Order: sequence, then structure tokens, then C-alpha cells
Amino acid sequence: MAEQDPRGDPPRDLPRDPIEHLVGLLARLPGLGRRSARRAALKMLMHPEKAMLPLAEALRAAAAAVQPCGVCGNLSARNPCGICTDARRDRGLICVVEGVAELWALERAHAHRGLYHVLGGTLSALGGVGPEDLAVQPLLARIAEAAVPVEEVILALPATVDGATTAHYLSDRLQGSGVQVTRLAQGVPMGGALDVLDEGTLAAALKARRSL
Amino acid sequence: MAEQDPRGDPPRDLPRDPIEHLVGLLARLPGLGRRSARRAALKMLMHPEKAMLPLAEALRAAAAAVQPCGVCGNLSARNPCGICTDARRDRGLICVVEGVAELWALERAHAHRGLYHVLGGTLSALGGVGPEDLAVQPLLARIAEAAVPVEEVILALPATVDGATTAHYLSDRLQGSGVQVTRLAQGVPMGGALDVLDEGTLAAALKARRSL
Repeated sequence: MAEQDPRGDPPRDLPRDPIEHLVGLLARLPGLGRRSARRAALKMLMHPEKAMLPLAEALRAAAAAVQPCGVCGNLSARNPCGICTDARRDRGLICVVEGVAELWALERAHAHRGLYHVLGGTLSALGGVGPEDLAVQPLLARIAEAAVPVEEVILALPATVDGATTAHYLSDRLQGSGVQVTRLAQGVPMGGALDVLDEGTLAAALKARRSL
Repeated sequence: MAEQDPRGDPPRDLPRDPIEHLVGLLARLPGLGRRSARRAALKMLMHPEKAMLPLAEALRAAAAAVQPCGVCGNLSARNPCGICTDARRDRGLICVVEGVAELWALERAHAHRGLYHVLGGTLSALGGVGPEDLAVQPLLARIAEAAVPVEEVILALPATVDGATTAHYLSDRLQGSGVQVTRLAQGVPMGGALDVLDEGTLAAALKARRSL
């Protein structure tokens, strides 16, 4: 069945039609629906050498080269990653994040000059995620064995119940280690209109008000 | 410079960092901005074998297999394409479209049971596009040499000045060939609210009104 006469039935019914197969894979990407996947495939098919083969090669190269950093868990073509090996960064300051997406977002903000630690999730009683499922032990080991003493751990965890649970748990585990534990400020986001903000954020922003 | 010490500077400044390179190529796809390209790359990097290598292979396979159909101009892994070789289609009916995107859109509507002809653009005095730049001659040759006589040519061209110019030109060229030339109806789109429609469409819809 796979090797049909190339002049036989129309390709729409064949699951292995290369165009439909490509559109199907593109449509799985976040942000691309089936409609835009079709548009993207068509645009690329107009210039196969210029558009498709470079992307195919980039995907293969990234899949082959990129791996989690053995120190912080960042995804990178180097191990340890470029952040962990950057001599200009403050090694006494570790920012704990849920995942690599959050690490990248903080890097784009250019606001953190220390190192990172990717937990790989948050504790979740409902989801059955315990401390042993996260990179908690590697964080504690990293702090205990650091050549440069770690002075502060910033918990940049999501402002959710699971995020708060994880923050409390980590804070407990770090008690007595001499490391200062902090968390991100909560409040009104930049450019945020007050009337569309949820009550929780408004209450937190009011409670944490500062004098001008 | 390309072969740097893997523990050297952070990768952000390297143009050839595989992640940044991949994000850059993904961001060129229509519908994906740089932000969603980063999200897509990250999602794929979590599962390189499951998400990246299949997409890389699909891109290579499509680039290798897909070509314009020698008869109608559709992009397909077969030549002639599955539509041109489909015995169930009405060979006396040819729908002329500007590009492959329009062909695919009409196919998705399941409304045309004949064949297609991709012009590859529309005539444009300003853009310097003349009849010799489009697949006009192949269309006339195809009609003249058809084994089954072509009875009707449907001009499914864009409702723009260039589209109308092209339609008039093709209509002129087909005069005397015994082929009936038609064009798509203009009017209010399905679900279209009248107050947001442009005046041209409203005027056309009013002029082409039909009795209930």
C-alpha cells in the first residue's frame, strides 16, 4: 500500500503524502495552527533549497548538539552551558526557576547577573510530583560543594499554589545553610491596567506598597 | 573563530549557536514571531528525537519530492499531480487560480470538481508583470490540445484591480475558442456583518442581488 502507482489516486487520502505529513508536523508547533502550518509549508515549498533544507539542517544540528547543562539544567550546545562558564557572572547568586523557558525569559530581561538552577517543575500533590522528581538534591549539593560560597538563592517560581509550595519547601531545606533565600516581588505588571487585574494580584500589590 | 573553546564566552554572542540559529529560521515562518519561534524551539528541544528529527526528515523529504505539476502547476509529490490524474474529476472544467495557496483553499472547500491551472501571479502594470511572466500560453495550449474538450474556464482570481485586469485579458484570449469563461460571484461573505464590509463589496452584493 505504501508504494502506490505515482499516477494513481489523488494524494489527499495517503497518510504519507510529504506535504500533508510536513503540515501535520508543523501544526504541532505551539503558535501554529493547521491553517498557518499549511501557509508556512507552502511558503517553504516555493524555495526548497533556501527555506526547507537550512531549517532541516538546523533542526538536526540542534537535536545533535543541544543537551541539558550538567550544572544548572539550561539547554545549551555546551556542557557546562555558557552562563555557568561565564566568569563575569556572580557565582554567589543562584536563581531557581521551574524550567528552561523561565530561564530564557529572565535572560532576555538582562536583570539577573548570577547563575541559574532549573528545577524541572514544581511540587504538586495533585500531579504526584515530589521533591525526588525535581532537581532539589542537585541544588543542595551544588550549594554545599560550591567553590565560591553561595550567598543568596532567588526563588523565581510561578505565583501559583504549587509554586508557593515549592518555594516553602526549598526555603525549609535551605534553612541553616547560611544562604539567604529570597523570592520575586509580586505586584502590578508594567503597563498593567488595574481594572483588568485579578484580585489576588491587587491585594498583593496593595500589601507590598512602597513609599515614593 | 568558528571553532571556539567550548568553555569560553557565553553563546549569546555567537551567530552559529545552534539554538539561536534554529530560532532565527523558525521566526521566518509566516505566523511565527521571534517569541513563538523560541517557544517552539524550546518545546522541540525537550524531545529532540520525537519532535525535531521527524520534522527535519519531513522537510528534507518534501524538498526532495515536491515539484510543480507539469500540467496545472500545483505543488505535489507526483507529476502530474493527484488532481490532474484523478479520473473522477471533470476534465471539461478548468479553474484558473493565481497561486497554489488559492488552489489548496478551493480544494479545502470541496466545491470544485474539475481541474486547475495555476497562473503564477496576476498581470500588473505597476509590478511589471506581463502575460509572458504568467502561465498563460500553457493554459491556451492545454485547452487547444485537450483530449476531452474544455467547456468552461472559471477565473478564480483575486477581486483586485490586477485580478480584474488578468480576468479581462484571459477572457479576451479565450474569445472564439468556444470555451465558456466565468468568474467567481462577488458578494457578502458567509457570516459577514454588513456594517464592517467595505463599500465595494456592498455595492457589488447589491447589484448582483437575487430573488428568494
